[in-house]
Amino acid sequence: MATLEDIARVLGVSKSTVSKALSGAGDVSDAMRRSVVETAVELGYSRIRRGDEAPRLAVFITNMGYASQEDFGYEVLVGFRKLAEPAGYQVSVIPLERELEARVGYDQYMMQQNYLGALFLGLSPEDPWLQDFETCRTPAVLYDNRVSGNPRISYVGVDNAEGLRLAVGHLKTLGHRRVGYLSSPLNSYVYRQRHAAFFQALWEWGLPREESLARSGPRPEQCLPLHLNALLEQGCTAVICSHDSLAAAVLVQCREMGISVPEDLSVLGFDDLPLCQAARPPLTTIRQDRAQLGKSAYCALASQLEGVRLSTFLLHPELIPRASCAPRSQ
Amino acid sequence: MATLEDIARVLGVSKSTVSKALSGAGDVSDAMRRSVVETAVELGYSRIRRGDEAPRLAVFITNMGYASQEDFGYEVLVGFRKLAEPAGYQVSVIPLERELEARVGYDQYMMQQNYLGALFLGLSPEDPWLQDFETCRTPAVLYDNRVSGNPRISYVGVDNAEGLRLAVGHLKTLGHRRVGYLSSPLNSYVYRQRHAAFFQALWEWGLPREESLARSGPRPEQCLPLHLNALLEQGCTAVICSHDSLAAAVLVQCREMGISVPEDLSVLGFDDLPLCQAARPPLTTIRQDRAQLGKSAYCALASQLEGVRLSTFLLHPELIPRASCAPRSQ
Repeated sequence: MATLEDIARVLGVSKSTVSKALSGAGDVSDAMRRSVVETAVELGYSRIRRGDEAPRLAVFITNMGYASQEDFGYEVLVGFRKLAEPAGYQVSVIPLERELEARVGYDQYMMQQNYLGALFLGLSPEDPWLQDFETCRTPAVLYDNRVSGNPRISYVGVDNAEGLRLAVGHLKTLGHRRVGYLSSPLNSYVYRQRHAAFFQALWEWGLPREESLARSGPRPEQCLPLHLNALLEQGCTAVICSHDSLAAAVLVQCREMGISVPEDLSVLGFDDLPLCQAARPPLTTIRQDRAQLGKSAYCALASQLEGVRLSTFLLHPELIPRASCAPRSQ
Repeated sequence: MATLEDIARVLGVSKSTVSKALSGAGDVSDAMRRSVVETAVELGYSRIRRGDEAPRLAVFITNMGYASQEDFGYEVLVGFRKLAEPAGYQVSVIPLERELEARVGYDQYMMQQNYLGALFLGLSPEDPWLQDFETCRTPAVLYDNRVSGNPRISYVGVDNAEGLRLAVGHLKTLGHRRVGYLSSPLNSYVYRQRHAAFFQALWEWGLPREESLARSGPRPEQCLPLHLNALLEQGCTAVICSHDSLAAAVLVQCREMGISVPEDLSVLGFDDLPLCQAARPPLTTIRQDRAQLGKSAYCALASQLEGVRLSTFLLHPELIPRASCAPRSQ
């Protein structure tokens, strides 16, 4: 394990400069601090621990996009801890704040706080650290967010292609031929993936695949009468939604428009949020198991800490059939 | 941990029937043997070990497709062992034989031999166990081979999309605009992936992407004069090959045809086999690190043994620039 002296020697500076740079003391230039942190990470330096102190991992969470899914992060975290803690790690949960990200770089923060690696739940495109991830040296595992080209960044999520294949296959088995798709805007990585996977699945199952079968827009929830009428006019007897809360909005809208689910239209969600069981009718969906996601994120981070240049770690999804899908009438 | 009695009770048969079925004794029907093995796997039964016996993992290897790459399996295996053995596993290497696969199912073999899970290197579409993988219950990690829909089967490989993005980006940086692609037949999962990733990468880098830029066929090595002439006539100044041995054949063919590499044509491979350094000129390629692949396979299997329904585990590839690519002339 490298020492402060090693870092000082490589950079040709004094040991006290290195020490100040790593502790974030004020009288070291930003450029020097960056050099010291980069060299420290490169040499495998980690801050001195007391003998009884466990190695530390960080889980950064944010409410961005999770406001209506309060359970999500919690269950992921429990799954993560279930593997990390028996393996001897101490896990800290840290709210991700833009102000912190703007003030200190990711590598520098992790070094100063003595974390070996981190899991990020709910990053958004505006988070300053997304820039850092293109070149950082401290392992980070991102849920449903992808940064290409940096060997220390890994992506964890569900296999969306397999999920859509299960969804379309289920509807085909129920006799549906024309299947529509409703999605949130395609500016998110996951929604783009699912959108492409929908058409791939139609092709694999031999169902008609016109572009107009998939509809997305900035606020799909607010244009549901338009979208639903268009899909029904095209002869659709089933619709897959990019995520459960959109599918739940479809159920409500169908009630208002006098469309019976599943008699007139089968509706299928994605994610298996708790709302699926509570919906009327209960929502057929594709489960991404949250405890499993947490375990996956730990396995991914553990692989990174073993020196594996992990790019992508995908879970098998699972079809959860409920009452919102039924055999096609007539 | 379940016992023989538990299995007997679930199935309503005698303990000796269970014992005979698990040991492969002759006087138990195939149907009963299958039920016993499936129940045993479901209940988490594992055969009695002596106190000092380590839990066992299997690595199945075959020469199919590896005949000219003798180092490949060996380096993967070393990587696998480097993580598995310190973690307390005993690793057995087993040649994969069709005769064995035809005689005994995968789950049954693993149960009888007391293996917890396996890595497969070099399965081919004709291997009988590929059928078993659709429903088996014992974890299996497949290198460069994909079985969709069974939560116990995981796929390990390199991120081909990122690899082609690196390759096309490198050529664009060198000033090339028209880039061709040569591939082995697209009936293999990996070659299909790379072929699609080539067009995706052309799109991402804003380069022209006509279908005729990619050429594949049953024996591309034997039609190289045809393919190379066609690509040159289309104005290509660089060609990416689906794998290194095809790229090496391109180098030889270019010499015979009086095409200078890299002056007239830049050539890029994929895999970083040892032949790349020995080639004249040395071959620029996309590395999939074999020791890292072995480590990845262990991490994937370890995740499965932790109960994670892992679908896909992809490594970051790396661009290895050598002399076979150069700036576009003029």
